[in-house]
Amino acid sequence: MGSDSPAARLANTPPATPPFDIVRAAFVELAVTDLAAAERFYAELLGMIVAARTNDTVFLRGWEERQHHSLILRQSAPGQPATASRLGFRVRSEADLERASEHFTGEGLTTRWLEAGSDPGMGRSLRVWDPFGYPLEFFHAIEQSETQHQRFDLHRGAPLLRFDHLNLHSPRVEDAFRFWLGLGFRCSEYISTDGVGGDDVERMTGAWMLRKPTVHDVALTAGTGPRLHHFAYWIAEPAGVMRACDQLSGGYHTDVIERGPGRHGVSNAFFVYLRDPDGHRIELYSCDYYTGDPDHKPLRWSVNDPRCRSFYGTRAPDSWYEESSLLLGLDDQPVATEAANVDERAQHSEVAA
Amino acid sequence: MGSDSPAARLANTPPATPPFDIVRAAFVELAVTDLAAAERFYAELLGMIVAARTNDTVFLRGWEERQHHSLILRQSAPGQPATASRLGFRVRSEADLERASEHFTGEGLTTRWLEAGSDPGMGRSLRVWDPFGYPLEFFHAIEQSETQHQRFDLHRGAPLLRFDHLNLHSPRVEDAFRFWLGLGFRCSEYISTDGVGGDDVERMTGAWMLRKPTVHDVALTAGTGPRLHHFAYWIAEPAGVMRACDQLSGGYHTDVIERGPGRHGVSNAFFVYLRDPDGHRIELYSCDYYTGDPDHKPLRWSVNDPRCRSFYGTRAPDSWYEESSLLLGLDDQPVATEAANVDERAQHSEVAA
Amino acid sequence: MGSDSPAARLANTPPATPPFDIVRAAFVELAVTDLAAAERFYAELLGMIVAARTNDTVFLRGWEERQHHSLILRQSAPGQPATASRLGFRVRSEADLERASEHFTGEGLTTRWLEAGSDPGMGRSLRVWDPFGYPLEFFHAIEQSETQHQRFDLHRGAPLLRFDHLNLHSPRVEDAFRFWLGLGFRCSEYISTDGVGGDDVERMTGAWMLRKPTVHDVALTAGTGPRLHHFAYWIAEPAGVMRACDQLSGGYHTDVIERGPGRHGVSNAFFVYLRDPDGHRIELYSCDYYTGDPDHKPLRWSVNDPRCRSFYGTRAPDSWYEESSLLLGLDDQPVATEAANVDERAQHSEVAA
Amino acid sequence: MGSDSPAARLANTPPATPPFDIVRAAFVELAVTDLAAAERFYAELLGMIVAARTNDTVFLRGWEERQHHSLILRQSAPGQPATASRLGFRVRSEADLERASEHFTGEGLTTRWLEAGSDPGMGRSLRVWDPFGYPLEFFHAIEQSETQHQRFDLHRGAPLLRFDHLNLHSPRVEDAFRFWLGLGFRCSEYISTDGVGGDDVERMTGAWMLRKPTVHDVALTAGTGPRLHHFAYWIAEPAGVMRACDQLSGGYHTDVIERGPGRHGVSNAFFVYLRDPDGHRIELYSCDYYTGDPDHKPLRWSVNDPRCRSFYGTRAPDSWYEESSLLLGLDDQPVATEAANVDERAQHSEVAA
Repeated sequence: MGSDSPAARLANTPPATPPFDIVRAAFVELAVTDLAAAERFYAELLGMIVAARTNDTVFLRGWEERQHHSLILRQSAPGQPATASRLGFRVRSEADLERASEHFTGEGLTTRWLEAGSDPGMGRSLRVWDPFGYPLEFFHAIEQSETQHQRFDLHRGAPLLRFDHLNLHSPRVEDAFRFWLGLGFRCSEYISTDGVGGDDVERMTGAWMLRKPTVHDVALTAGTGPRLHHFAYWIAEPAGVMRACDQLSGGYHTDVIERGPGRHGVSNAFFVYLRDPDGHRIELYSCDYYTGDPDHKPLRWSVNDPRCRSFYGTRAPDSWYEESSLLLGLDDQPVATEAANVDERAQHSEVAA
Repeated sequence: MGSDSPAARLANTPPATPPFDIVRAAFVELAVTDLAAAERFYAELLGMIVAARTNDTVFLRGWEERQHHSLILRQSAPGQPATASRLGFRVRSEADLERASEHFTGEGLTTRWLEAGSDPGMGRSLRVWDPFGYPLEFFHAIEQSETQHQRFDLHRGAPLLRFDHLNLHSPRVEDAFRFWLGLGFRCSEYISTDGVGGDDVERMTGAWMLRKPTVHDVALTAGTGPRLHHFAYWIAEPAGVMRACDQLSGGYHTDVIERGPGRHGVSNAFFVYLRDPDGHRIELYSCDYYTGDPDHKPLRWSVNDPRCRSFYGTRAPDSWYEESSLLLGLDDQPVATEAANVDERAQHSEVAA
Repeated sequence: MGSDSPAARLANTPPATPPFDIVRAAFVELAVTDLAAAERFYAELLGMIVAARTNDTVFLRGWEERQHHSLILRQSAPGQPATASRLGFRVRSEADLERASEHFTGEGLTTRWLEAGSDPGMGRSLRVWDPFGYPLEFFHAIEQSETQHQRFDLHRGAPLLRFDHLNLHSPRVEDAFRFWLGLGFRCSEYISTDGVGGDDVERMTGAWMLRKPTVHDVALTAGTGPRLHHFAYWIAEPAGVMRACDQLSGGYHTDVIERGPGRHGVSNAFFVYLRDPDGHRIELYSCDYYTGDPDHKPLRWSVNDPRCRSFYGTRAPDSWYEESSLLLGLDDQPVATEAANVDERAQHSEVAA
Repeated sequence: MGSDSPAARLANTPPATPPFDIVRAAFVELAVTDLAAAERFYAELLGMIVAARTNDTVFLRGWEERQHHSLILRQSAPGQPATASRLGFRVRSEADLERASEHFTGEGLTTRWLEAGSDPGMGRSLRVWDPFGYPLEFFHAIEQSETQHQRFDLHRGAPLLRFDHLNLHSPRVEDAFRFWLGLGFRCSEYISTDGVGGDDVERMTGAWMLRKPTVHDVALTAGTGPRLHHFAYWIAEPAGVMRACDQLSGGYHTDVIERGPGRHGVSNAFFVYLRDPDGHRIELYSCDYYTGDPDHKPLRWSVNDPRCRSFYGTRAPDSWYEESSLLLGLDDQPVATEAANVDERAQHSEVAA
């Protein structure tokens, strides 16, 4: 596959002039089946700051963050499964929220306004169900707290500093890619097939897209979806990722570690993936790089490069590819999923070997 | 000093709508008295990539960088001292260069165009001598190289990843602050006096200002100037800073280490400062944080907080406050300097102790 | 299984008054099928110091070591497979060598003296084939070199500091345990079955035994044998283990990484296992602990504790359990092997899951 | 100064056949003026394990240790200053205690037996006042606790793993050296003058001496004495030393950091020195090396090598050379001190510069 393949052309397409200005991915809301267990996981085991608490919600943030909260745990309705219920993005101004509303309405998508104060500390926000079923939410105003970045004496468990990105399990990666391109996201890296065998078309099986100048705000991973593959918090250094693992295992919680610690070839991240009591996946993420130059070009990885997903060659467990969080739909029911149109593992050497 | 002091008001002044769009601080040119010695320092001891070389210049970059070069070593004219001769900033587009030219001309500043190709890999650039004497240079186009971020096997000495910032020794910090505010720079942190003693006015003795969403692109340090206090490259993690120190000292080059390794309270940087054979100061810098949210407010440090410049309390050597690089002026002579209007050390507890 | 089980009683048996004084495990000789490829692996990729070289051998040591060499690569005879051909131990004095000779002769084992100078830098040594077929070698005198511990500027690839231990793949772990106990080795940790199912006897599946006051000089791992499972070099810190991985993968040698980086529950080691071009396995090992107090008691791990072999829960690849180095026998032929009398993996939860 | 200088001959003198078998330096008792403040420092700020507590004492240990305690804080008598009151060494057996008693009595030194149980968990011990005034104590039996090495979830502040060594401020280093040589201690490293100027005799200004095979159990530092310069706990890795500093400073306790973090040339230690509320000095110590081979030779450093005490060249504060803990004498009064017969700082380049 050359640089003029369809996938390469797509990856290198300049982003649209954004219809409104998204600053970054900024929060996630998880519907959980046992709120107390979820709070224990994030606040006690991982050591996040509890910003606010209501009867059926807990609001948390990382140690560096001034934004009132970046993780919402919400007790799911009786009988309902755990889902990812809101994927939050901050926009630059209130005017951008208005433009967002016009844009999505113009696209024929369902939107809803949430009034300021619906969540503690937050201004009004705009909810949108994207064409694939992801429950997006855009906001500008949010209360600012004091950073506790340097209160190293209080950091416990895993020194989660700040919300970094959302990774979406996508049955049709290239379609999703075009959607985010349309919102002004650029691509930093992508994985594509080599187009061998019966199927000789190069296909994207993963893509990393950004607004803030890091490797990504949103990643797309080929797989049954729409689902949320994981959300990630930034850790200052690999030593912090390892310390989190040591503390989890030292306290007899090895079972929450799903994959890692290790390094991704893609993004250069030194990572570990954890599963919370409902199976939601959180990545502790360090070591990405600067992508803010205007002519920054995407890097391509072949799915057959063994270093692509696992720089040190460690095989990912099947669960990492197969499992992820259902989404909460417009009707308060889990969004129906479909299988991916390309299977990354079927092609690459980790499995072939 | 309260939050409504003059210094606090200045620090919290929103930046001007930028007259043109500066992406980030992007390079520095050093006039050196012994080009071979300077190249040995940066390319062999510190392990930077040599991008190009001419009779009287060497162009280098860090391991992550795709921008053709970010450090230029230029043989100084016979009899001339070492100076910092160009402080480079990247702008978003060629149109921004035009707007820059109009802006500075309108301000009555001297500007000059350098044609594309004057330096290997670079497009045209605009040189400007700011009101204080700093030799600024703005450019948009530059050749893109392949990143060697993950060629860990080739990284040597000090794994310098990318150019991060410029720190300017400024005799009048608040005046300089206003200049950069006028170019659209925001403030992330500042140091100010407590206004004790005969002088009861709070005064800024340091400020950290940014365009890219990190702690800074330009810092201002009170001191005899105008001079370049230091330039800094990003290191992925504290372990990398320490490894650099171990390798320097292991190879009998302890003398190039001026200050550190240590952590600054301001910026949270884990750092070490080195002096090159001409005394130019380079900082190896890790651990800053995200500042890109639109309502990100500056943090204030008192000069009397012992953690401010030295989080662990280690006293900085006098040379760190007193020495820095002369600038090359419009007339190819070193720019004349004046003493600072406020002496940070005279007030703070490191010295009082 | 209680503390009075046969395995626990064996593990807690005080070592014999040593018939001669072994200081520590001190070197390994590998017969390799391609000497140049093996040297490239150890000297270039891993960065070890080449101490001497002959037509058919290369002698290497780690950066801290003063002992002339701790790794010998020897070209294997045409048509012969790669083997581990000598497992070296240092004794305290020449008199201890004499006592060793008497001891082993008295035990009816085959011994041979090698004259001083048979290898560069080495005094005379005593070769012994133990009852299981391991080619042991004991020596006292060896040339002392200058340490290069602090020449951090020269350390490359993987900063291997010093030889640490030998791990023996043993078909009958408890028998081997008694042999080493008889030479004055103590036990720091062991793994044993819980004795469930049809087989209700607790059995040792792994044991860590020492002379120098670290976790081990010799480890025994249940498996087809006698074979050498691996040998290990000490790395100063986890950051060094990871740097080695980054440098190997960065240079496109991910394929040499077999398992890790990760932490063992047993021994607390932060490790990575590599395979050389002949499949010999080397561990980069950091983070063990002090065991020198006279009443230091062994720790027991259940094979069913998921943290036992893999503190973070990452599944070891099958190759790590199944493959290892054949030994070179008295007749210069590979020593015949037999299957283990207990299969660790058949019982523990990594596989059950 | 050549290798046949008096200081070199002394350093290379083989240790005496030990009159009794000392395993290692094992504990220190500090008389403190405010027991609650001292406990807060060691147990809360540094995070040590409290093993036992009485009305006027607190017994603590590190996370790895099984020995019941390794640090004793004892409320000093009213009006008495803080002192170091017992310097503890473990011997291999009860018989060694008897031999110790005979030995010291034979030397004409004052000894006293403490009955078993005088301290919680401890067997009987033998107190000895050495010829310089150091209050030594020897013991064999001590209660064994469960290690908490891998309870990473509980480690706080500074992950102090185990007692490592005692550093004695000695007015006559060479005399003290001979005393320890007589107890079977070997020398791993020493610092000596170059014998320049009026005084052309090479003199030892520091020495590192050991029983366990690390760099030292006892170090001797030239200075006013006899006093205890510091005691040290082992930290697993440099990252742990830095984490301790970050947590101390993050919690507004920068003032307890006296020197570092940094690396010593001597011993290769990556260290930080802290002062407790009474001014007692504790070192957090990592990165030494193996010294157990029978022919291990001492390394010599010149006091004029800038890397000797400070590998990165950072100047030590004067307090580090001048201040240290008085000792408690036989009469329960502080032991009188005398000035050193050689001043390390007067000769070396840190001060000359």
